[in-house]
Amino acid sequence: MTAQAFDPASLKYDDKGLIPAIAQDAESGEVLMMAWMNVESVTRTLETGKVTYWSRSRQAFWVKGETSGHLQTLVDFRYDCDQDCILVMVRQEGPACHTNRRSCFYTAVREGETVELMGPMA
Amino acid sequence: MTAQAFDPASLKYDDKGLIPAIAQDAESGEVLMMAWMNVESVTRTLETGKVTYWSRSRQAFWVKGETSGHLQTLVDFRYDCDQDCILVMVRQEGPACHTNRRSCFYTAVREGETVELMGPMA
Repeated sequence: MTAQAFDPASLKYDDKGLIPAIAQDAESGEVLMMAWMNVESVTRTLETGKVTYWSRSRQAFWVKGETSGHLQTLVDFRYDCDQDCILVMVRQEGPACHTNRRSCFYTAVREGETVELMGPMA
Repeated sequence: MTAQAFDPASLKYDDKGLIPAIAQDAESGEVLMMAWMNVESVTRTLETGKVTYWSRSRQAFWVKGETSGHLQTLVDFRYDCDQDCILVMVRQEGPACHTNRRSCFYTAVREGETVELMGPMA
């Protein structure tokens, strides 16, 4: 298969102009978080190598870790068969979660009850 | 931290009643796909152990692999800090992708060009 030039506008964005982006630790394989990007976030992420989301609450670009120092450096940018979901493989500095946990997915449901899988990082 | 009874309605669903669900291979750690669930999908997934999405195109429940045989068996059900995204750890029979590839995330963007990372399974 021949490589083709990638156009960020070729991805499928929802009615708010957003696409979900999953961040996975490139080394450990741990799924760290899911947030949203718009077409300009995609462009900036690829150009700068700093994973850049669109904050729906703040309605602003969100360079992950810019204020906290917990940067996500892009290792590989991937998208799915339907072109409506992104997977960024990243190198994560410190915790990805705003609760100071490594991953946002720290709660499991087992036998009908919630279980906390990890605590905040020291 | 004390375990608490889990209520599927306690998750945050969007204005269409849906929540994104990421499926990750429980053994390899590979991210396989992302699809959507509604509150009843969550309930069915937990009760049956068969990962059950809501098909937006068909507007129907979608027991993954029910017609293809490529079942996803639930290994662990997790959700994130904001309670607006699910991570299902699964045992995946065969390909997860409708293109017959193991994962839906088979396209990467490298140096501005798209690269196919894997082909269909034999």
